[in-house]
Order: sequence, then C-alpha cells, then structure tokens
Amino acid sequence: MNSPVPNSSAFSELRAYFGERFSTVPDVLEQHGRDESRAERHLPDAVIFARSEDEVRRVMASASQFEIPIIPFAAGSSLEGQLIPVRGGISLDVSQMNTVLDIQPQGFLATVQAGVTYPALNRQARPHGLFFPVDPGAEASLGGMAATNASGTGAVRYGTMRDNVLSMRAVLIGGKVIQLGTQARKSSAGYDLRHLLIGSEGTLGVITELSVKLHPLPSELAVLRCHFRSVEAAAQCAASVMQAGLQPERLELMDERQMRAVNLHQGTRYPEAPTLWIELAAASRTALDEALALCAELCAAGGAGGVELARSETERQQLWQARHQAYYAARALHPGHAMLSTDLCVPLHELAPTIALTHRLCAENNLDASFVGHVGDGNFHVLFHAEPEDAATWQMIGRVYDLMVAAALAVGGTCSGEHGIGLHKRRHLRAQHGDLLELMRGIKALFDPQGLMNPGKIFEED
Amino acid sequence: MNSPVPNSSAFSELRAYFGERFSTVPDVLEQHGRDESRAERHLPDAVIFARSEDEVRRVMASASQFEIPIIPFAAGSSLEGQLIPVRGGISLDVSQMNTVLDIQPQGFLATVQAGVTYPALNRQARPHGLFFPVDPGAEASLGGMAATNASGTGAVRYGTMRDNVLSMRAVLIGGKVIQLGTQARKSSAGYDLRHLLIGSEGTLGVITELSVKLHPLPSELAVLRCHFRSVEAAAQCAASVMQAGLQPERLELMDERQMRAVNLHQGTRYPEAPTLWIELAAASRTALDEALALCAELCAAGGAGGVELARSETERQQLWQARHQAYYAARALHPGHAMLSTDLCVPLHELAPTIALTHRLCAENNLDASFVGHVGDGNFHVLFHAEPEDAATWQMIGRVYDLMVAAALAVGGTCSGEHGIGLHKRRHLRAQHGDLLELMRGIKALFDPQGLMNPGKIFEED
Repeated sequence: MNSPVPNSSAFSELRAYFGERFSTVPDVLEQHGRDESRAERHLPDAVIFARSEDEVRRVMASASQFEIPIIPFAAGSSLEGQLIPVRGGISLDVSQMNTVLDIQPQGFLATVQAGVTYPALNRQARPHGLFFPVDPGAEASLGGMAATNASGTGAVRYGTMRDNVLSMRAVLIGGKVIQLGTQARKSSAGYDLRHLLIGSEGTLGVITELSVKLHPLPSELAVLRCHFRSVEAAAQCAASVMQAGLQPERLELMDERQMRAVNLHQGTRYPEAPTLWIELAAASRTALDEALALCAELCAAGGAGGVELARSETERQQLWQARHQAYYAARALHPGHAMLSTDLCVPLHELAPTIALTHRLCAENNLDASFVGHVGDGNFHVLFHAEPEDAATWQMIGRVYDLMVAAALAVGGTCSGEHGIGLHKRRHLRAQHGDLLELMRGIKALFDPQGLMNPGKIFEED
Repeated sequence: MNSPVPNSSAFSELRAYFGERFSTVPDVLEQHGRDESRAERHLPDAVIFARSEDEVRRVMASASQFEIPIIPFAAGSSLEGQLIPVRGGISLDVSQMNTVLDIQPQGFLATVQAGVTYPALNRQARPHGLFFPVDPGAEASLGGMAATNASGTGAVRYGTMRDNVLSMRAVLIGGKVIQLGTQARKSSAGYDLRHLLIGSEGTLGVITELSVKLHPLPSELAVLRCHFRSVEAAAQCAASVMQAGLQPERLELMDERQMRAVNLHQGTRYPEAPTLWIELAAASRTALDEALALCAELCAAGGAGGVELARSETERQQLWQARHQAYYAARALHPGHAMLSTDLCVPLHELAPTIALTHRLCAENNLDASFVGHVGDGNFHVLFHAEPEDAATWQMIGRVYDLMVAAALAVGGTCSGEHGIGLHKRRHLRAQHGDLLELMRGIKALFDPQGLMNPGKIFEED
C-alpha cells in the first residue's frame, strides 16, 4: 500500500484545518523519520501537530477514509524503530498535548494528556510530596511510555508503566474514542483492554490521555556505590540485596568498560571495575541506617570494594553521575559509530549466569560490548557499537544477539524488558511468542481492520 | 444451543478415557451446579476431573468437535455465578491438578498447577521465608483466582492477581496450548495476552499452570485495631494512613452492624462501632515502633477510640479474629437468608464520600446492609441479605445496587474490585465499559469462535 501524496485531495481537508500544524517542511519530516535507534530512516508524507483529542479524532477519521497510515509520535525517543514511518503516511505528533489535567494528592493520581513528559509531571507532583516513578531516560512522553510499557531505574521498586497506568483514553482508526481501565486501584470488570494498549507501540490506537499512580516521595534516602571483581559477582550481590527484602529504590550495574568510557568522557577517575549502585529509602533516619548496615554487610559478603555512601541530595547526585552518563559516554567513545542496546530480562536467579554467558559470547566473537543494567529486575543492557557501514560486524552482532535471546528465553526470560519490539526485534518476538502471534494479529485486526496504525511494527510483514 | 446428553456418542470417548473421573453422579453434578453466590442453579451434563494439561487438551478437543460448553472449575468459590453451567455442558474440574511444580526462592517465584490453592502454596513457600500474598478468602485455587483477578486483604500492599501472575499456560477450545507472559519480572514483547486471560472468568480458555511472584515474609509485624464514631470517619482515617506512606500490609474496615453480628455469633464483646485494622510490617523492631507511633497519631487525629495493639502471632490472630468471622457471622445472623456482597472500588480520595452516600442509600430504602472493606484499596463490600423468595426486597436491593454502581462510576471507580462480572454484574459492566463491549466480544470470538467457553458469563446474551 502506498499512501497518498501530501498535496492530494486526501490531505487537503487536514491541511485546511490544521494550517501550519500540518507540515511537510523537510526538517520536520526528517525529525519524524527516525528515532534513537540505528534503524533505517523513512520520511512521513506529512506531520500533524494535534492539540486536543478532538483533533486526533479528526485525523483518525480522515486517515480511515483515505487509507493513510498513522504513526503516533511525541518525544521521538523510542529505541527499536517504533516511530519510523516505513510506509509513509502521517506522523501524528501529540507533543503539544502536554497539559497536566488534574492531580489528586489524596487519591495518589494524576491525569495528563499523552504528550506530557515524566519530568514535567514530576515538576507538578513534587510540591504535593508525590512523584511518578517510571523514568526511562530521555524526555519521554507518558503516552509513548505507555505504548512501549517503558520502565527504567525505578521499576525495581515501583514497577513499569503497566503497574502505574490506571486508565487511558485512546482514539481508534476511524475516530472512535475509548476509555480503558478506571481510576480505582483495582478492577475485575471484563477483559482488561488497558493492558492491550500498554505495550501496543501505536499499532492499535492513539493514546490521548492517561491517569497514572503517584507515590509518596521517600523521606530518607541514601545511595551506596561499590565495585566488584567481575560483572557476575556484582549481579550476584544485586540478587542478594533483593533476596534480603531490602526493596531498593534503584539497583543499577555498570561494567568496567562502561566505567572506563565515563572516565575518558568526563575526565573522572572512577575505579574501572564492575560497579553497583544501591539506593535505599526509609521512613526515618534510624530505619535507613539499619537498612544501610544490612546492605553493607551483603556487599562485603559479596566481595565488594571501595564502598561509598551518599546521603544529601548533592552527594547522591554526585555518586550517581557516572551511571547517568553511561549511554552518552559510550556514544562519545566511538564517534561515528552506531549503537545498539539490547534489553533482555531474566528471572532474578538466572541473572548472574545469563550475564556470564553473554559476556563469554561477546568475548568469543571479539565484540567490544559493555554492560549496564537495572539488575534488581533481572534486566540488563548490552551496548554494541560499530561503524554504520561495517556489515560484517553488524552481522556478527546480530548473530550474537540471537544467541543471547535464545539463552534468555531458555531460562524463562524475555527478549525485551523495556524497549519493545518495533522493527528490530520482530524475529525475537516470533522466537518468544510464536504460539501467540496469530491471536495478536487477530487483535490487531479487531482494533485496526484497515492495517493503518503504525504499520510494520511488532509483526513481520506477510 | 443445547449440549448433547451425557450418554450420547459425543461423551462416549471421554467417558471411556476418564472412567470414574467422568461423572454424572447427581451429588457431583449438584456440587458443580452452583457457586457461593445467590445465583440460579444449573447442572452440568457431566463433570470431568482432569489430572494433567494433556487431559485438559483431550477434553477441549472433544468439546470443540461436539460443540459442548466447557465451564472451568476448581475450588467452586466464585461469587458472581461464574461457575454455573447455564447452558449445561462439561464442568471441567482441575482441582486435582494440585501440584506445586517448582519454587525458586532466589528468583521469588513459584510454578503451580491451576488447582493449587493459595494456602497450599503458602505452606510450601513459608519454609523458604517467602509467601504468596493474594488471599481472597475461601480455599480458592490459583487458576480460579487468576480467572477473576482475585485480590483480598493483601492487595493494599502486594497488588492483585494481575500484579502477581508472571506467566500462565492455558488450553484453548480445540486443544491448542498457549504460554502467556514470561518468568521475568517485566517484559515489553508484543501484546500482553496474559492480562486478557487474567479476569476472563473462564470465557477464553482453561488455565492449567501459573508462575507467580513470591514475596519475603515480613520480619516484624504488628496490628492496630481501633474504632470510630462513623464508617466515614474510619474510611477517612484509612485514607490518611495510606497518604502518610505507611504502606500497611493490610487495612481493613468493618461497620457497627458487622461487629454486632460477630458478637452475636461468637459471644464476644467487641465495641459495636466501625472498626479499623491496620497491620504494619518493618525490617526491625525499631522501624516498626516508629511506624506504629505515626500510625497511632493518625488514628488519634482521626478520632479513633479503644486503640489496641498486637505483636506476637497469637495476639495478632486474636485481634484479627472478628474480621475473619465477618462473612460467616453475617450469614449466621440471618439463617435462611441469601446474601449478596457488592465489591465496588473507588479512588482513595472518593472512598469516604462514596461510603457515606451508600450508607444513606441503604438507610433511605430501609435495607439492613453491613459494610466491610479493603479500604486501603478503596474497595468495600456491602452485605445485603433477604429471604431468597422475598422478591420485593431483592428488587429494592437491585435498585440500590444500581445506584451505588452509578455513584462509583461517576467518581472514576469500578463496579467490581475483585469478584468479577459472572452472571450478576453484566448490566453493570455495560454501564461501565459499554464502549468496549464490542471489542471484548471480538476478542472472545478470536479465542473461542464456537462460543463454548463458559457461555453466558461477562456478556449479556444477544
């Protein structure tokens, strides 16, 4: 299917209605033709900046009428090619739908338009002593985060988007508006279609509004940082912290290559060894000190060295700094290289052996890969890099990646802990959920009988 | 559609295979013809006791071939008529599939057959210092609990089945086996069909196996019990405990009528006033004492009287006793009466006003209703009762129930916090999710094109 050309009659109504917010300016198309991944680039035929659900409905009605593909877009921070208009069409940009509509401090909930970013929500929640804990990095929008079931460093304590979205409004192709979920904290009222939209990567409808859980800001916080002889030892220690029931706020790992990248990039002198960050919270200083003491014991038993502790906000930020710089440091270290970040997730008791296996696979195949991970979830990223045109290395990366996925699936894990499937992991999805693909395609056809919603994503083309 | 008679050729193969585990004994049919609700009773044509997934597949293949309705059955403890074979067919009893297959203490997970009850799982988890926190009461099976997205007193801290089921195996009509979810703690791999099966009340397939999260047993526990002048004041205090971030393990409410019922039933002398239970956990005695002190302050500020504290396991069980007896006491107080328990759930900030409104509705209509609730979730039960044949009272109860549902929906709540839809709440589901029913029916048709899975449940007949 080819979409109509932007100056055709199919677009004329939309162009007339949206005026300057209907754009075919090359820079704007370019910006909506890629995401943060190493994916091929395709331009949309047009970009529309919607400012209300009603405007989204209008676009979705026209799209159905004229069979124009729709790619929902907000912050543009997806990592698996989710936003790339592989079949052209309209990139429907909801980033201007960025109003926090309501905060109910007594109900622990906020209602926002889909284009609100999580840092923006947090700026409004914090004065109430509350915060939204899902932090995938980048300035991601809540609509996009729901669409990929995003998570990040806070998931170990507060869960993913799936655990924090109470209800949503969405527009289906053709313009029908649906309301999914409720604002109550639990519900057993029919099939939970909310969980279909969460993680649907724009293939079922356009999310326009979300009600999400807020959580009380922890009153006492501290961060421990320490390093280990091996990544496996660090992962094992992370598992032991979880097993002790310490419920860390964050539990992050970086390997020695990542630490070296940061030192080179930042001019710092961190020990270039696998490093663990453990952030703990408690209701009082006494309770926090007890937790820290237990945690330090576990680290010592796990062979940790160089234990450092930060309490004040400034100190904590300083201690976290290397972790925050990880991705950019790795990028800066290999200028001109494209990066590929995996996001496997395995059961906690399988984390250390899986990381060990992955390490070996990379070494055996001479791949220079670094590790960083939300290890309290069993989720870790391997950062690969190579020159974009270096086909041989990318082929090798692909082969090793497939082996890593197979190893994760064999121990009950998943090919994607948080990035989603997009364009890049469609074959991995087949390996993981081949028995479910027919049902998933059936559901896709129910919501989007014309196949116009973000075509080419999640499912391999027939 | 009428199902075949049990001695027809349709059943002969199954009868031959299952022998005595294919039953048409009147007592057995009777036991599978009702649940714990005040629903009409219908007998199945036959009951089959399956002992393995392979046996379930065999039944599901025959059922498709001969168009026989299938009603999955395990503990028989549903409350909304979910188990009632309104169109006859086979009650497929998986209660003998009761093996705990695997416990991974380091991975915080257990894998069980669908007929394992949560108390049985807990008996095997506790020696590892772990437990499964979803406790709907009765000796419910994990398969059935997943099918209704059950919760209970532990949900305020640990969530519902939806939050605790990592993966499932299920058999579809015709015999196909599917695997939903993974054992990893998070996944963003395609549409999350796991959440369709959870809460599907046996209308999509038969759950045969589940992997669920286990949690560390809290090391220090204490329970506060206190009473209030009004249910609204108690509910308000419950909300303030949540808002303080105390994260109680349980937070339960009973009104004065419930307390009186317990006194009459048990010969106890509890104050006959709205009563709140707050169970707190901490990693140490010091941390627990701090939390208790804050909690006691909040209770005092909320106007609580008669504050009692229990620490040892025996004392705690004693303090909880009245709460555990609630349902049976209410039942015993009105011998011969049928009971109906609602399970509305509203956002926390709407709880006290919603309870006040509900109270007024009952009083205005001279309904003798008592309240009990998992108030930390915003979830509360109103227990109605009347003689089964008293049509006028049941009509009034129905009218008041509809008004209660409308009030809950108006503030963003749900008609069912934990019991599900079954036969009784189908009209409430339409009020709540009317815009989604077409999609839900489409999904039902995808999984069960012949309409054989637990017919008549969730959806009103055409």
